[in-house]
Amino acid sequence: MTAGDMRNLRTTRIHFGADYNPEHWPEEVWTEDIRLMKEAGVTMVTAGIFSWGLVESRPGEYDFGWFDRVMDHLAEAGIRVCLATMTASPPPWLSERHPESLPVGADGVTKWPGSRQHYCPSSPVYRTHAVRLVERLATRYAEHPALDTWHIGNEYGCSNPVCYCEVSAEDFRRWLRERYGTVEALNTAWSTTFWSQRYDTFAQVLPPRTTPTHPNPAQVLDYARFSDDALLQCYLAEKEVLRRITPELPITTNHMPHHKPVDPFAWAPHEDVQSLDFYQEPFDAGTHIDAAAAFDVTRSAGHGRPWMLMEQAPSAVNWRARNGPKPFGKMRLWSWQAVAQGADAVLYFQWRQSRGGAEKFHSAMVPHGGTDTRIFREVSELGRELAAVPQIAGSRPAPGVALVVDWNSWWALEQGSHPTSALSHKETLLRHYAPLFEAGVPCDVVPPDRDLSGYKLVVVPNLYLMSEATADRLTAYVRGGGHLFVSYFTGISDDCDRVHLGGYPAPLREVLGLRVEEFWPLDEGQRVSLRGEITASGDSWSEAIDLEGAATVAEFGDGELAGRPALTRHTYGDGVAWYAGTRLEPTAMRALMDRVRGDAGAAPVIEGLPAGVQATVREGAAGRFLFLLNHGETTAEIALPHPCHDLLGSTPEQLTSLTLPARGVAVLQH
Amino acid sequence: MTAGDMRNLRTTRIHFGADYNPEHWPEEVWTEDIRLMKEAGVTMVTAGIFSWGLVESRPGEYDFGWFDRVMDHLAEAGIRVCLATMTASPPPWLSERHPESLPVGADGVTKWPGSRQHYCPSSPVYRTHAVRLVERLATRYAEHPALDTWHIGNEYGCSNPVCYCEVSAEDFRRWLRERYGTVEALNTAWSTTFWSQRYDTFAQVLPPRTTPTHPNPAQVLDYARFSDDALLQCYLAEKEVLRRITPELPITTNHMPHHKPVDPFAWAPHEDVQSLDFYQEPFDAGTHIDAAAAFDVTRSAGHGRPWMLMEQAPSAVNWRARNGPKPFGKMRLWSWQAVAQGADAVLYFQWRQSRGGAEKFHSAMVPHGGTDTRIFREVSELGRELAAVPQIAGSRPAPGVALVVDWNSWWALEQGSHPTSALSHKETLLRHYAPLFEAGVPCDVVPPDRDLSGYKLVVVPNLYLMSEATADRLTAYVRGGGHLFVSYFTGISDDCDRVHLGGYPAPLREVLGLRVEEFWPLDEGQRVSLRGEITASGDSWSEAIDLEGAATVAEFGDGELAGRPALTRHTYGDGVAWYAGTRLEPTAMRALMDRVRGDAGAAPVIEGLPAGVQATVREGAAGRFLFLLNHGETTAEIALPHPCHDLLGSTPEQLTSLTLPARGVAVLQH
Amino acid sequence: MTAGDMRNLRTTRIHFGADYNPEHWPEEVWTEDIRLMKEAGVTMVTAGIFSWGLVESRPGEYDFGWFDRVMDHLAEAGIRVCLATMTASPPPWLSERHPESLPVGADGVTKWPGSRQHYCPSSPVYRTHAVRLVERLATRYAEHPALDTWHIGNEYGCSNPVCYCEVSAEDFRRWLRERYGTVEALNTAWSTTFWSQRYDTFAQVLPPRTTPTHPNPAQVLDYARFSDDALLQCYLAEKEVLRRITPELPITTNHMPHHKPVDPFAWAPHEDVQSLDFYQEPFDAGTHIDAAAAFDVTRSAGHGRPWMLMEQAPSAVNWRARNGPKPFGKMRLWSWQAVAQGADAVLYFQWRQSRGGAEKFHSAMVPHGGTDTRIFREVSELGRELAAVPQIAGSRPAPGVALVVDWNSWWALEQGSHPTSALSHKETLLRHYAPLFEAGVPCDVVPPDRDLSGYKLVVVPNLYLMSEATADRLTAYVRGGGHLFVSYFTGISDDCDRVHLGGYPAPLREVLGLRVEEFWPLDEGQRVSLRGEITASGDSWSEAIDLEGAATVAEFGDGELAGRPALTRHTYGDGVAWYAGTRLEPTAMRALMDRVRGDAGAAPVIEGLPAGVQATVREGAAGRFLFLLNHGETTAEIALPHPCHDLLGSTPEQLTSLTLPARGVAVLQH
Repeated sequence: MTAGDMRNLRTTRIHFGADYNPEHWPEEVWTEDIRLMKEAGVTMVTAGIFSWGLVESRPGEYDFGWFDRVMDHLAEAGIRVCLATMTASPPPWLSERHPESLPVGADGVTKWPGSRQHYCPSSPVYRTHAVRLVERLATRYAEHPALDTWHIGNEYGCSNPVCYCEVSAEDFRRWLRERYGTVEALNTAWSTTFWSQRYDTFAQVLPPRTTPTHPNPAQVLDYARFSDDALLQCYLAEKEVLRRITPELPITTNHMPHHKPVDPFAWAPHEDVQSLDFYQEPFDAGTHIDAAAAFDVTRSAGHGRPWMLMEQAPSAVNWRARNGPKPFGKMRLWSWQAVAQGADAVLYFQWRQSRGGAEKFHSAMVPHGGTDTRIFREVSELGRELAAVPQIAGSRPAPGVALVVDWNSWWALEQGSHPTSALSHKETLLRHYAPLFEAGVPCDVVPPDRDLSGYKLVVVPNLYLMSEATADRLTAYVRGGGHLFVSYFTGISDDCDRVHLGGYPAPLREVLGLRVEEFWPLDEGQRVSLRGEITASGDSWSEAIDLEGAATVAEFGDGELAGRPALTRHTYGDGVAWYAGTRLEPTAMRALMDRVRGDAGAAPVIEGLPAGVQATVREGAAGRFLFLLNHGETTAEIALPHPCHDLLGSTPEQLTSLTLPARGVAVLQH
Repeated sequence: MTAGDMRNLRTTRIHFGADYNPEHWPEEVWTEDIRLMKEAGVTMVTAGIFSWGLVESRPGEYDFGWFDRVMDHLAEAGIRVCLATMTASPPPWLSERHPESLPVGADGVTKWPGSRQHYCPSSPVYRTHAVRLVERLATRYAEHPALDTWHIGNEYGCSNPVCYCEVSAEDFRRWLRERYGTVEALNTAWSTTFWSQRYDTFAQVLPPRTTPTHPNPAQVLDYARFSDDALLQCYLAEKEVLRRITPELPITTNHMPHHKPVDPFAWAPHEDVQSLDFYQEPFDAGTHIDAAAAFDVTRSAGHGRPWMLMEQAPSAVNWRARNGPKPFGKMRLWSWQAVAQGADAVLYFQWRQSRGGAEKFHSAMVPHGGTDTRIFREVSELGRELAAVPQIAGSRPAPGVALVVDWNSWWALEQGSHPTSALSHKETLLRHYAPLFEAGVPCDVVPPDRDLSGYKLVVVPNLYLMSEATADRLTAYVRGGGHLFVSYFTGISDDCDRVHLGGYPAPLREVLGLRVEEFWPLDEGQRVSLRGEITASGDSWSEAIDLEGAATVAEFGDGELAGRPALTRHTYGDGVAWYAGTRLEPTAMRALMDRVRGDAGAAPVIEGLPAGVQATVREGAAGRFLFLLNHGETTAEIALPHPCHDLLGSTPEQLTSLTLPARGVAVLQH
Repeated sequence: MTAGDMRNLRTTRIHFGADYNPEHWPEEVWTEDIRLMKEAGVTMVTAGIFSWGLVESRPGEYDFGWFDRVMDHLAEAGIRVCLATMTASPPPWLSERHPESLPVGADGVTKWPGSRQHYCPSSPVYRTHAVRLVERLATRYAEHPALDTWHIGNEYGCSNPVCYCEVSAEDFRRWLRERYGTVEALNTAWSTTFWSQRYDTFAQVLPPRTTPTHPNPAQVLDYARFSDDALLQCYLAEKEVLRRITPELPITTNHMPHHKPVDPFAWAPHEDVQSLDFYQEPFDAGTHIDAAAAFDVTRSAGHGRPWMLMEQAPSAVNWRARNGPKPFGKMRLWSWQAVAQGADAVLYFQWRQSRGGAEKFHSAMVPHGGTDTRIFREVSELGRELAAVPQIAGSRPAPGVALVVDWNSWWALEQGSHPTSALSHKETLLRHYAPLFEAGVPCDVVPPDRDLSGYKLVVVPNLYLMSEATADRLTAYVRGGGHLFVSYFTGISDDCDRVHLGGYPAPLREVLGLRVEEFWPLDEGQRVSLRGEITASGDSWSEAIDLEGAATVAEFGDGELAGRPALTRHTYGDGVAWYAGTRLEPTAMRALMDRVRGDAGAAPVIEGLPAGVQATVREGAAGRFLFLLNHGETTAEIALPHPCHDLLGSTPEQLTSLTLPARGVAVLQH
């Protein structure tokens, strides 16, 4: 057990709670808050996220008195505090005194105060003031009995992910100097002989602001890396203070799911616990699959350790165009889904619904209408359920399949000037993830440098940017007996977004046993048929494949490429490498992935799972827990592989099968 | 009769005319203009709107000589002048010398000269120069025999409704200091504990410029109020000069219909006559209903007194994407519609079609093709018709139904961060107005502080922002025997856009006899059925209603809320309060409103009006006038309630029924 | 033969080659490049386009050494160089030292370095540095044996067509002073009495930056003229140096097709050879018609002399949303199409596919995958074919039909504030061009001041802006026996975008024998039927026509204008003038144009051409060449008018008919 592990989420139950913003309300309401929290089963709150403006209402003048009382109330009630560092949004006085600390868009438009996160991530002014506050805060509450975990900032990069101001430009130059050493190395990395872009000094380099036409892709890629790193440096500056003052306490920050500007794998080494905010879209019938993938990314970033669902909505949010409430039972279902995928904490935004401000129509545990509401009833019921299964805490899933993703590749893939703009990192990930999810095959979602040897199947969906080292590791994985599935437009470009020469995808040609002679993107609405072992149709993408050892599983059935391979399988070393040269429709993708994982011996949790039912397993010291969640709208009958005890049910007998109503949840132990 | 009434439009006929811009043409054309005006029946023109650049071509150097000749020509011809103050658009020299007088967008983009209205409404530079010009102008023409009415500015806020420059920021701070007194009061009003937005001094406050994410709603709302007020201050600065120099003359300014940035009810106390510009959209089959509502707003703002249709197009406009001409007969029909709804003047933009400039393809009374054109023939014929019915002038409609609207609520309603973005103030108003219009039930459209006691029915469509005082007045109105119809998402928020706590809609719960437990917005394209006394379907919005005394008129028939109330009726005191919890399709809305107004005893002008026919009444010293306008495309047969004399017809007999051709107009007296 | 003709493309064969960017690659690759160029049949490359950053990596420090070696290699191999002046894109140091040289949008947003062409066209800084470089370059290579032709800049105005910065504003004022002399003349030309826009001094005039509402159309029009001229001045500044140092060498620059900001007819007098870049869109079934029109514009700009296809793609491009490759055989087909329409050179962008940068996914003669690719095979095969027909070089088409277009009219037509936004210059041109193309009738596409006397038919599609002089010339053309076809909304406005008064279209009323009383634009999706000699339907536009001598060919069959003329024919003098008052669908347009050209005696190259087959003729000293290109997807049988020899075929006999496979090409001599 490492020192990092020691600072894991230290809990013997599934925590339950919310963001708590008592400063929105007069102090008399706080007493009622504590009473209702107990009623609802709250065990943890995260407080102080946006309190900077109140605790330091003038520069250097601190008033923690009111917050002391909040902390004391919570401590008395035995509610743990995941204490925010209060730096998520600076008070108006900061930008009034330092307008150069405001973020600026690529078009030169300043983002002014009036909402939140109005700071340039590279701003020394912001960082200095934030660290100064954190020093005071940590010192004051280091020994407070309510303090459980540190929550640095909040949703880093949600609203200010990239800044193009002069402060950022200067920081970018520093970052480039550190990365490349010489301007010649930069010129090589950025292919600046193209379009007369050669730099003579670092001082000439700029952020990729608005340009007359297509920008330099390597510059844009590096700016994405730099911008993520600038946010991480804000986090690390605060973390340094906290670790110094409270070395024993775990530190986290809440990420947003599938959030392109912030790479969770780059941040993970600096976090003691992974945290995620996830807001299901009730109008999207596949929102639970979207969530499932995000949960798996979060858990995988933490190498499988229990994580926190830091924010979800009790019902509707306020920031989509149309904000449907969570239908009856779905909040419970989706909360248990997080637990089923490894979460040890389920928190909401927020405790009490705001009366004013931009989030007043975001649902909360205590709605505007008070506690005589279905929302308060549903959350309280969930609080009771979670309290009944403390033995789950600390147990972990152990998937046999890994999907490989890379934020660097995402940043490169979705730039312009590509064969097609139809390829979306997230859409492609979900298209590969969904057939495994639906089959009941748990997955990890890991970065390219993760040890793959324990997985029966590794899926690589459209990993456009890939270093030779990664390609070598994938090749070695197959040679050693692994099963690999690779989709089109993978392994094309190196870390500087320069094409690997020698025939696409050059570093994977050997393991895949083929060469792609020419990309053949399809028009919008155009489909191409496939015939062979799999009958299907593809869209968006096709390509001219020459076999070099692989066998054709299906070939194109029409169009310019009729008769040429579309899906291939290559026996290589002791393993197998599959390749898909087009984008299959979901049904065919399910059939193909069923076959691929069958070959690989990657079995589902339960064979023959009814449509719509999710099945996961967590194992730990207290046993092995089977979670069954019915995301469908009809009752499902499920035969259990072993007799199990129903932890949420009322019957003491062992079950061999289960009737799971629509939106139903079962937690079983065997 | 008040002093204000004395300055009402002083006319013994329906005025007819146009914007007159003689400076576009050489003086020899002016003589022809006067001759043709007489031929066309013109009795009034509004002149000088954009003449600033010619009368003051250099700062402080005035040349009114050419304009004297224009005024003299008009006086000689007996044509009255509604004299514009020439300040609608400053000459290029103003912004050349004072670039800080240019308006700036929320994104910092300056709006440069080259079109019109390129001034910041808060600019002291603009106001000073405008007032200086008006002083000269008023002094020069105070005693001119052609001068009839003052026309200040033009279409205030059409192109520069909101400015975000530093001059505006400073003026906003002044306005806030006056409104709130202390920064603490501001913090409370704006709920600034949210997202760490607390202000320490007024100097920190900014306009709601581009922000990283959702802005503070109360700040945005106050900026809409401030911006409207900044424009009003421009108007008032000029008005002060005119009233001082010509205390007897009426003063007006022309508003645009359904123009969100400018609240006609806030301006009305400062206007002697209401004026409106309305441009029907010939491609929109419902454009006359749109117009009808705007006419009723205008008349209601003036408490029913005769108003001016200051601008309409003789045929096509030039500023839509596709500008269809007015089909044969529609210009006449729509002109009479204004009169039918209380106008005592019908003017066009413009007299003679421009040869150059941005409006050269806007139709005019004298087209590019000259007088041998259907346009000149049609307008001349209308001129003759209007001249034939002087007795109508001064008479007024007296509707028995009022719709309540509030620009403050509009400004709050259409902000982001709401349960849905599907709610539009104007669309909702028209959806409630149309079934009354189509049934032949004349309406007023009034602000929330208007005395409602004279109305048989008061309709409150989606009045999101509502003070407790307004709610109390509505409650008292019902208690006293009134009939009230309220639609969803009404009475939610106070004047600072803070939610009224205690269950939606808290201040109306008693009168409506219900509580809304949770909003349930629908997805795009989603519909929910209703069953009960009304069978219908709803879209965009639904909500979970708990009855507290009201009776269910219809319940939801499917979806998550199946079986819960959708439409309710509550007998309260001596009156009745209806409530609609979803957005009904137009047919069901018509059926519902027919029932509601039947209950209330709000009868139509004529029972059983054929589809497409509008019926209105004006009453005055000269009698009672019935207007029938056939907006449909087929002939309509109408049984008259009383024998009538046909004022536009050739027959002297009294009519008991009328055959009204498509696009036909009848003005009847009985 | 003029001095200009002496500098025509001096070739005795069809040149074949590509953009060559050796600086992207290490020198060892250059040797392979030369070897492969010989293999592929390359005879000409254009080099140095983006080399500024390498030859002058610091201001004033030149390193031509590496480029000397490139030139020497090419000379040794006998490959001709169309030498670029290297000024297409300045190195980063230029804007670092002179930020005022960067282009700025109408909204004030700077276009920063990082892509290409980041210079303000009016910038004296850019021009001075460019000319200094060109002086060095021309001096160094004036006598180099590889040097064949000068290629100034590259795709002028592709990415920086219009700049709104202060430098541009000052240059605009200079340009206006030169054009108008006095500010009063400017005021008259710009109709500044409208909206109070009168200027008192030139110093008050600005570019048409973002305005509160519709800008002054004449200002916008003049800014388009000025902006085109600013780019031309950049070209001319370099040309002056080249002509001085190498007076014998032809000079060209490559235009983009249908490129609104740059008027090819205004540039043509300053070019010795016309050059065009054309990138077919493989997903567009009509892309070859689009190309055909652009080729005809290019050839017509050069008064028929041979021109260069300077850039095309070997297969896919990278800059559309979805970039389909060229299907098998289409690259050959489309290359021959350029030759068939008069090109004497067929070049690609580019020789070797880039590894990095924004165009790395643009296809090249040598793809990433190397020479064992269908692309390299197809281009090499084409190189061999072109080498086999040197006798074609220098021959010219001689069409009997001219379409008249005018960039000035384009600039005016597509501004806002018009009767409809549905009229597009390019769409309308192609709608008139396609039925002639499909019938096998070759066309010139000429500016309004071109001598029309040699044409049997002149087509004027929607030439909105037309001087009286042009109208007089069209009238004289018909009077003298010409056949003229004019479409709606033509001849409306003068050179200052002021309407010609006296009934639309005033200057053409006499020749057309009609008056348009009122424009009657149609709604989106609205169609109007036509009945008479042509049965058809129209959309987008209709108008109320009064006959004044013309005869009705078809009248409107429904709608408000039912029974009024829609298509007319007027016998005038010895000729005939047709007029179309609506926009016909393509089938009806084909029928109408067949009748119009039949009347005019404008015969096709081959009567009864199968659908999809293009037929053109080039004639010269070496004979008469018939080109047949099958753009369709089925085999076509074509009866030849005369026995012909098949220059690309293997049979020595004369053919009287030809079987042309799908995508097939035949070059015949008779």
